[in-house]
Amino acid sequence: MQGVLNIPAELEGVQGVISDAFPGVIEIFEQQLVSDLPPIDEMCRYIERYRGKMLRPTLVLLCGLASNPDHAELIDREEQEQLLTRAHQVCGAVCEMVHMATLVHDDVLDEAEIRRRGQTLNMLHGNETSVILGDYLIASAYELCSSLESPTPSRIVGNASAIMCTGELLQLHHRNNHSLDEATYLEILERKTAALIGAACELGALCTLGFDEREHPVTQALLAYGRAMGVAFQIQDDVLDLMGSEEQVGKSVGKDLEKGKLTYPLIHHLANADADQTLRSIELVRLAENNDRSGVPELIEAIRGTGSIEATQSLAASYVEKAKGALLELPDSPGRRLLELMADAVIRRSY
Amino acid sequence: MQGVLNIPAELEGVQGVISDAFPGVIEIFEQQLVSDLPPIDEMCRYIERYRGKMLRPTLVLLCGLASNPDHAELIDREEQEQLLTRAHQVCGAVCEMVHMATLVHDDVLDEAEIRRRGQTLNMLHGNETSVILGDYLIASAYELCSSLESPTPSRIVGNASAIMCTGELLQLHHRNNHSLDEATYLEILERKTAALIGAACELGALCTLGFDEREHPVTQALLAYGRAMGVAFQIQDDVLDLMGSEEQVGKSVGKDLEKGKLTYPLIHHLANADADQTLRSIELVRLAENNDRSGVPELIEAIRGTGSIEATQSLAASYVEKAKGALLELPDSPGRRLLELMADAVIRRSY
Repeated sequence: MQGVLNIPAELEGVQGVISDAFPGVIEIFEQQLVSDLPPIDEMCRYIERYRGKMLRPTLVLLCGLASNPDHAELIDREEQEQLLTRAHQVCGAVCEMVHMATLVHDDVLDEAEIRRRGQTLNMLHGNETSVILGDYLIASAYELCSSLESPTPSRIVGNASAIMCTGELLQLHHRNNHSLDEATYLEILERKTAALIGAACELGALCTLGFDEREHPVTQALLAYGRAMGVAFQIQDDVLDLMGSEEQVGKSVGKDLEKGKLTYPLIHHLANADADQTLRSIELVRLAENNDRSGVPELIEAIRGTGSIEATQSLAASYVEKAKGALLELPDSPGRRLLELMADAVIRRSY
Repeated sequence: MQGVLNIPAELEGVQGVISDAFPGVIEIFEQQLVSDLPPIDEMCRYIERYRGKMLRPTLVLLCGLASNPDHAELIDREEQEQLLTRAHQVCGAVCEMVHMATLVHDDVLDEAEIRRRGQTLNMLHGNETSVILGDYLIASAYELCSSLESPTPSRIVGNASAIMCTGELLQLHHRNNHSLDEATYLEILERKTAALIGAACELGALCTLGFDEREHPVTQALLAYGRAMGVAFQIQDDVLDLMGSEEQVGKSVGKDLEKGKLTYPLIHHLANADADQTLRSIELVRLAENNDRSGVPELIEAIRGTGSIEATQSLAASYVEKAKGALLELPDSPGRRLLELMADAVIRRSY
């Protein structure tokens, strides 16, 4: 998230502690995916480029710090660094690997061609290889997670992954449903995106507090923070898919319309436009669903016309506030302040 | 495996103990997949029909019995039943769920239309739903596995699943490779099939002996049994895909040829035919790879002509002997005798 955050001088210390823990995360990640079979090794090296913002490992580490009662007191950077253990790094690598598996499978489902400004794996190696490589990433993530001494992280990651899948299935079930409502849209987001981001925050706290501390108020607060932040993150992703350019976002855009996924700007628009405009807009949506993007500029204008972009931004902002509110359970600390900044950044980002 | 086995009277008791433990396995399996979302619940109910021979849960339970030092001594059936715990049932359900996930993804990759004499999920709901439902099954299997008190079963299942994926990837890498050799073929089988069957046997032993007993000679013997049996099982599967009828086998056949997967009968044939026949056979293989099955009867005749069916049967039989040899580490018992019968049955089955 570095590019998005404007880190004030007072938080450069905590930012440095996180940065120093990152090479360990990446090493664990890469080590887990080393294969004795050269063609598999090569593909794993290729998809490592999918690692982007590394949001989930950042959250594991930062929640690991912020949940430590000693964190606010320590001045010395080396002492701060010792608050983060190998377990934090393992959990960070696990969450990123699960996330990456969903990216590989999503690209198959979306028939996407571009990811992180490069060709997607499905374009290079075909859908079959992509499906299995996604499976390999999931299995490797679980194997890595179960290397920890407690089965609790495996429980959390297994459960979050299953919930993610139900979110994707629910979304598929509502494909081309032009009367999708806000509640179902949010249910999809909470499952497909927020569950894993919440799990990352929970794992960060548990690596610090002990794996039996799932009911600890700090664990619960960070879980709530992650879930709310995850919803805000996905709302912003949906806005970028609708309004952003491929060049700016770095991946295929306009996929939601094409794939018949209604997102909040459109849901709000269809619920608030007059009858004639609703009919016209649905006509334009159907065009896009049939791969004809000629009506998209008119549709975006219509969406603006009902104030639906502002309504979407305000919905996302309400989740950011909810996330920041959850953090008040924690004592003030540089880690907590950085988590607040990250929540703000989630809806300001343009990629 | 009931339909394949001819159970002698002396083993009906142990067979009954396994049968009595089965409803528990199925209940755990179904409970794990219950969803609060009706469309997802409905799909899970549909794919429960994929449960076929239940080979893996049977092996977990039977290895659980055979590895128990008390098993050979006990006469009373109720006492026998108490040797099997909820952990055995959980591990059985987990292995079947992982296996079922691979079936769902395999059907997508193979574009298969028939499974267990019914339409495949991908034909009914599309590839996207099938990919995610497979992911949901994998995630649910891990979640279930991590409900056990030790992380060891999760380690075993995560590792076996990752190895399975590398086997599938290796197979894809060698698609349409008409000079695939025996060693690579066996490497693929050991990974894509034998790893999980070995894991099922290992888990059965560990649920009995304790999760720290991975190095115990009985655990090691049952792992070796499962791996060898898994290779024999897959060789037989490959023979059935080549020679069996859809009606008899209950799923789409001829997929290996069509998908450019060379299996042992063909590998042996191409290595042993004279130069002219080899050229002609490769021509027929290419036809099949292009979905033209008109040359398949001639190809099968040619394969018979080089004695390649007998060679395949003899290869499979050598793995059955290896599996039975590994069992000699265990004391003689009804459970061990049933495991021996199962190994024999694997290469006698016609479905």
